[in-house]
Amino acid sequence: MTDSTERLVVIGGDAAGMSAASQARRLRGPDELEIVAFERGHFTSYSACGIPYWVAGDVDERDDLIARGPEEHRERGIDLRMRTEVTEIDVAGGRVRAREVETGAESWTSYDKLVIATGARPIRPDLPGVDAPGVHGVQTLDDGQALLDTLTRAAGRRAVVVGAGYIGVEMAEALIRRGYEVTVVNRGTEPMSTLDADMGRMVREAMEGLGIAMVGEAEVTKVLTGQDGRVRAVATEDAEYPADVVVLGIGVRPDTALARAAGLPLGAHGGLLTDRAMRVRGHENIWAGGDCVEVLDLVSGQQRHIALGTHANKHGQVIGTNVGGGYATFPGVVGTAVSKVCDLEIARTGLRERDARRVGLQFETVTIESTSRAGYYPGASPMTVKMLAERRTGRLLGVQIVGREGAAKRVDIAAVALTAGLTVEQMTSLDLGYAPPFSPVWDPVLVAARKAAAKIREPWDRAAS
Amino acid sequence: MTDSTERLVVIGGDAAGMSAASQARRLRGPDELEIVAFERGHFTSYSACGIPYWVAGDVDERDDLIARGPEEHRERGIDLRMRTEVTEIDVAGGRVRAREVETGAESWTSYDKLVIATGARPIRPDLPGVDAPGVHGVQTLDDGQALLDTLTRAAGRRAVVVGAGYIGVEMAEALIRRGYEVTVVNRGTEPMSTLDADMGRMVREAMEGLGIAMVGEAEVTKVLTGQDGRVRAVATEDAEYPADVVVLGIGVRPDTALARAAGLPLGAHGGLLTDRAMRVRGHENIWAGGDCVEVLDLVSGQQRHIALGTHANKHGQVIGTNVGGGYATFPGVVGTAVSKVCDLEIARTGLRERDARRVGLQFETVTIESTSRAGYYPGASPMTVKMLAERRTGRLLGVQIVGREGAAKRVDIAAVALTAGLTVEQMTSLDLGYAPPFSPVWDPVLVAARKAAAKIREPWDRAAS
Repeated sequence: MTDSTERLVVIGGDAAGMSAASQARRLRGPDELEIVAFERGHFTSYSACGIPYWVAGDVDERDDLIARGPEEHRERGIDLRMRTEVTEIDVAGGRVRAREVETGAESWTSYDKLVIATGARPIRPDLPGVDAPGVHGVQTLDDGQALLDTLTRAAGRRAVVVGAGYIGVEMAEALIRRGYEVTVVNRGTEPMSTLDADMGRMVREAMEGLGIAMVGEAEVTKVLTGQDGRVRAVATEDAEYPADVVVLGIGVRPDTALARAAGLPLGAHGGLLTDRAMRVRGHENIWAGGDCVEVLDLVSGQQRHIALGTHANKHGQVIGTNVGGGYATFPGVVGTAVSKVCDLEIARTGLRERDARRVGLQFETVTIESTSRAGYYPGASPMTVKMLAERRTGRLLGVQIVGREGAAKRVDIAAVALTAGLTVEQMTSLDLGYAPPFSPVWDPVLVAARKAAAKIREPWDRAAS
Repeated sequence: MTDSTERLVVIGGDAAGMSAASQARRLRGPDELEIVAFERGHFTSYSACGIPYWVAGDVDERDDLIARGPEEHRERGIDLRMRTEVTEIDVAGGRVRAREVETGAESWTSYDKLVIATGARPIRPDLPGVDAPGVHGVQTLDDGQALLDTLTRAAGRRAVVVGAGYIGVEMAEALIRRGYEVTVVNRGTEPMSTLDADMGRMVREAMEGLGIAMVGEAEVTKVLTGQDGRVRAVATEDAEYPADVVVLGIGVRPDTALARAAGLPLGAHGGLLTDRAMRVRGHENIWAGGDCVEVLDLVSGQQRHIALGTHANKHGQVIGTNVGGGYATFPGVVGTAVSKVCDLEIARTGLRERDARRVGLQFETVTIESTSRAGYYPGASPMTVKMLAERRTGRLLGVQIVGREGAAKRVDIAAVALTAGLTVEQMTSLDLGYAPPFSPVWDPVLVAARKAAAKIREPWDRAAS
């Protein structure tokens, strides 16, 4: 280290933070850049998205979910301080205060450049009993381990999942595969509110087919505990659902208490606001990425909060490149997400009906039924594609797909089309891969595009005839 | 029918011709438009792409491959004349001469509008013995039936496939699954010349793994026959390969003898030349589509001939719309193709190295190894992605993918990106579907794009540092 060595401080040791640190280290050696990273938990660079599959038993070991452990990061020249929580950012002074979780010892560390990657926290509703033993979030590996400990030790066989988003749905499947009787209590009419309700209904039916009890339009009012203080049931206004274990899958919020206290700019969803280079707005030497930031939705033009590992990794890569003296940007998202319930694949990208309405877009919708392969080819399975296109312009606005094998990743076609601003008319002639084992001669996405294009054209066709 | 009724004549009863006829009928009733279609074979609207799977036994019945039979077309108001071959187009007189195959009876039919959808013919090398019993092409359902008859009747168990393109590779698999000893004799070093050789090598290794003998860099010089006149072996300059059955998979050529005789414009590949609306160039009332036309390659800017059912269907749709008084175009292709050998999936889109060189494009290539799912998720399998990007601009030029489940249709991401003219740098931030059962946190296509973008940037990065 020399006098000209800069110090980069990274807050948060998961995907965004450690990707940023690693990429910065790749571009600038220790003589140029000292890197100090703080992580309050026990783990670094892990796949939170993998936790439901670990709980289900698809993934054997917790460590399988860890892409790179603390020692590997240290070997790459990153001064990683585990179990150390940053408690204050002093923006004016260019320093952070950190506290060792075990000892409580506090100290200040100055920075030339700062990366905030504090992630998200699961929403824990302010309900009586919600902190009782047996009630679990599943955001961190520590959470996952705690849940697995409960599942291993607890005698009971009844589980209640609160919330029916990605985590709720995946956890419901994990628990039923572990032999639990599972009830999912959900505020909305249908699960997967990231889909329109007509598509969400298919997910509900599939989950019911697995023997999962789906309770929609229900608000949890209380978590009831037994004499041992452990959870024994979940109560709504109308009913009680016995539970030996409760999983909260209500969603997450950006974990930006530190940033808020430091006076950094937050958006309407509580996430940090950055520019395209992932710099915190108005702060030349502070970057932020991952689950703690808001991102631009390229379709609606508005800010969103999306907690997803693939975005966090991209943010980290962009930040590390910029910190390292290069140039990279994260232009935004189109809102792609894929998931599955047993062999039912679920995918969405772009805007739902309500999203389009909210931003003042008028649109046509079509829903088509097709198959994953040529109808005559073995294993061809039904697939439903819903497509939204803007009125007049015909611009693609969103796609939702529910089906079996090969359904989910077909949404990537629409994700690229949304990024490129294609119209549904343009999509009708996309040169997509065709062979009988992989697609009907008209890919389901093309079938939807044709129908959507016809609907957009209809007023002109009528006027012309 | 009234005096103002126009007559549409369609030559060819498969995908392009009958799609055009059906779409024209949808838009214009029998009072406005009389539709006469000629088909020289026994079948209409069938999937030639499905023949290998029918031979393999994946598809039970020949009729499973028929999307719509003659009677169904007739019920929709199309005057379909089966086993009737058009032998002449009289462009000046606006009429076609047709001959009934069974009786030899000839007659003229006048047209107001004409659709030429005469398809392609398999290349049959001009070799001694090539017409011997036991030597089969696999272009039409009739061909497929003849091959199956041979396979059912013939006593032998040795098959030689000449050519290692899509049909050759698929037929080799079909024959080995039927218990044949299979030898593939191929002119190129590696099979699948639609891929670069480094990717084709992986296909060869997979085929050899199935027990298929792969003979590369070999030109067939002769088909040897036995005393019964049937094929008994295939000879190259260096060797003889015993064969009870021979399948020709050398490729196809546009079947444009009729068009040529009529003086219609043909391109360098022997296909009809059309405008964007699929009108034959210079002929206001003649359209052409399917395997008998050349199409614009949107990446190279040059004309190509590609025989593929999905294009034929799109052409038919466009032609039928225009004939029916609407407006539609077929802008061109990017050259997407997918296939498989057992569980090895093979995909390509855009330009190979030699294609790019031929049109004067300089490029960088990268090849990366990744996995189909998160590495820790059960069933994750290796996937190789090769990507070509133009120097300086960074524009994506082509992608080739070889892998297992989930490899082939990933090429659609690149197909849309090529259509939209995205650069590999833009592709690095594509919002592709991510969840552990479907993709690593960086999709293999993104990994390739990142590496390609870094290579494109390298000169600038070096200059800047």
